[in-house]
Amino acid sequence: MSIDRDAIAAAARRIAGDVRRTPTLELELAGWPLTLKLEQLQLAGSFKPRGAFNALRAAGAPAAGVVAASGGNHGAAVAAAAARLGLPAEIFVPEITAPAKRARIAGFGARLVVGGASYDEARQASEARAAETGALRVHAYDQAEVLAGQGTLFREWEEQAPALTHLLVAVGGGGLIGGAAAWHAESGVTLVAVEPEGCPCLAHALRAGRPVPAPVGGIAADSLGARQVGALMFPLAARLHAARRLLPVTLPDEAIRAAQRALWREARIAAEPGGATALAALLSGAWTPPPGARVGVLVCGANLDPATLAEHGPEEAMPPPRAPAAG
Amino acid sequence: MSIDRDAIAAAARRIAGDVRRTPTLELELAGWPLTLKLEQLQLAGSFKPRGAFNALRAAGAPAAGVVAASGGNHGAAVAAAAARLGLPAEIFVPEITAPAKRARIAGFGARLVVGGASYDEARQASEARAAETGALRVHAYDQAEVLAGQGTLFREWEEQAPALTHLLVAVGGGGLIGGAAAWHAESGVTLVAVEPEGCPCLAHALRAGRPVPAPVGGIAADSLGARQVGALMFPLAARLHAARRLLPVTLPDEAIRAAQRALWREARIAAEPGGATALAALLSGAWTPPPGARVGVLVCGANLDPATLAEHGPEEAMPPPRAPAAG
Repeated sequence: MSIDRDAIAAAARRIAGDVRRTPTLELELAGWPLTLKLEQLQLAGSFKPRGAFNALRAAGAPAAGVVAASGGNHGAAVAAAAARLGLPAEIFVPEITAPAKRARIAGFGARLVVGGASYDEARQASEARAAETGALRVHAYDQAEVLAGQGTLFREWEEQAPALTHLLVAVGGGGLIGGAAAWHAESGVTLVAVEPEGCPCLAHALRAGRPVPAPVGGIAADSLGARQVGALMFPLAARLHAARRLLPVTLPDEAIRAAQRALWREARIAAEPGGATALAALLSGAWTPPPGARVGVLVCGANLDPATLAEHGPEEAMPPPRAPAAG
Repeated sequence: MSIDRDAIAAAARRIAGDVRRTPTLELELAGWPLTLKLEQLQLAGSFKPRGAFNALRAAGAPAAGVVAASGGNHGAAVAAAAARLGLPAEIFVPEITAPAKRARIAGFGARLVVGGASYDEARQASEARAAETGALRVHAYDQAEVLAGQGTLFREWEEQAPALTHLLVAVGGGGLIGGAAAWHAESGVTLVAVEPEGCPCLAHALRAGRPVPAPVGGIAADSLGARQVGALMFPLAARLHAARRLLPVTLPDEAIRAAQRALWREARIAAEPGGATALAALLSGAWTPPPGARVGVLVCGANLDPATLAEHGPEEAMPPPRAPAAG
C-alpha cells in the first residue's frame, strides 16, 4: 500500500463514523494571527484514533484481539477502537507514561501492562505477547494504515482552512508528520516539524540521511519520545525536506511549557506538553513565519493532569516573541 | 433601541474585529448526538466580551473610562475590551468571585475592587463609583447593547449549525438567554434555559410573571448568581415561554459537577460550573430531547482553576442518562 492522497481519502471514508471532525479556531497569539486545529478534542484526547481505527477497520476484526505498545496516546486510541469494535485489547506502556494516560487506557476497558523504561522496551514486550496470542499488532507510527489514518487530519484541515501556507506539527515517531508529508507531497504547503531537544529523532534522521537512534527524554517524552523515526515515514519527510518544504525545529522544554501555559491562558485550551510543542516553535521565536505566511498550528493531544496547567500561575502576561534563533 | 435581529446583526458588525468566532464540535455524549458551541474558547474565557465590546464600541471611548460590577466573567470581558480600546477600567466583584476570575481581571490591567457578599452588593458599589468619576457603566446583563452583543453568539451558531432545533443555554441574570430569545424570536428554535437550583431567578420570574428576587448560592453562583433577571430580557423570555419555545429547567449542583467532569473526560473541554450547566440538563435527565430533536449545547465559560477538573477522578465511566425528571 502506498501512502498517498488516495490512501488517505480511503482511510477518511473508512473511519468517518468513528472519529470526530475536530474544529479549527482563528485567533491572535503574541501578535501572530493563527489557525489552530483543535485535535486535542478528538475521541480519546489525541489524533491517534485516526490511525488506530483505520488499522483495525482495514484488518477486519481479529478474534484474538489487538496488542499495542504506546507512550499512552496510541494505547488509549487502540483501546477506544477495540472497545467500539467489541475486541479485547492489551496495551503495553513504559514506566514514564503519565497517570492520566494509564487511566485513559484502563478506562476504555483494555488490559494495561506497565513495564520497561522507554517506549521501545514496551514495544518489545508487546511483540512477544502478540507472537504468543496471535493478536493483531497496531504499531504506534510505522505502519501504512496508521500513517494514512493520521493523514486524514491534514485532509480535513485543508478543507477547513485551504489558504494556510505553513503548518506547525509536533513530531514523535513520525506517524503524524508522515501523514502530513503524504497529504502535502505536492500541495506547496510547508511543514514545520517541531521536536523537543530531549527527543529529536527526526532531526537526527534528516542529518544522517536515514532513521538513526536518538536520545529520549524531557517533559514530552511520553507522547513524542520514540527512539527513532519510522522507516515508512522517512522517505516522505526526506523528500519534502530536500525541497525545503519540511523544516525541522528543536526546542527546549521551557519553550514547550510556556506554550502550554499560553494556550490555557489565552484560549482555555488544555494541551499536554506534546500537544503544545508545535505552538512553542512560534512563541519561542525558534521559527518565524516568512512575510505573507498564513500559519496553522496543530494542537494534537490533551491527556494530562489538568492541575499541571495551573502550576506556574495561569495569568502571567504573554511574553513577546523572541528574535529568530533557528529555522 | 429594540433588541431584535437587526440590532444583533449591527452588533455583530461592530465587534467582528474584536471577538473570536468560536467553533462548534459534533460528538456523541451518553448516547446523544450533540453539537457543542465552544464559546469557552472566546477571548477572556467566556461569551461576555460580545456584550462588553458592543457596549463600549457603541458608546465611543469615554475618557473617564469604564466601571462594571461582575461575578467575574463580565468584569474580565470589560477589562479586556477597555485594554484593547486604551481605556482605564475599574471592576467590582463580590467576595465569592473565584481566584481564577480575579486574576483574569487584574491580568487585563483593570483596577479590581473586591467587596460585598454578592454580585448585587458589588453592583451598588460600582454605581456609586461611576457617579463619582463619570465613567461609563456597562451592566452585566440588563442593558440593550449587552443583550444585542450576546445575541451575536446565536446568530453565529445558526450560521454554523442551521439544522439545530433545541439549544441548551445556562441562565444567570439573563443577558445570554435574552440575546438568544431576541435572535430566535421567530425562528422556531426551542431554548432550554438551564439554572442551578441554587440561583433560579428566571424560573422564579416566569412563575411570578415578572422579575422577582430569588436565592443566590451553589457552585455556579459566581457566574450565574444574579438576584433577579434583567428587566429588558424578561419580556423576550416570557413571550417565548408562553409559546412553549423557552423551557426553564433547574438542576442540583451535583448534576453540574458531573457535566463538568464529562466534558473533560470525553472531550478534554475545560468548563467552569456555569459553563457546564447547560449540558447538565441533558446528562442528568432533567430534560430529554423529543423525538427528532437536533440538540445544540452551549459551553459558555472556562474561567476556573484547572485543578478542580481532576478533583473527582477524571476517568470514571460516563453514567447512563436518567429517566426524565422535569421538563
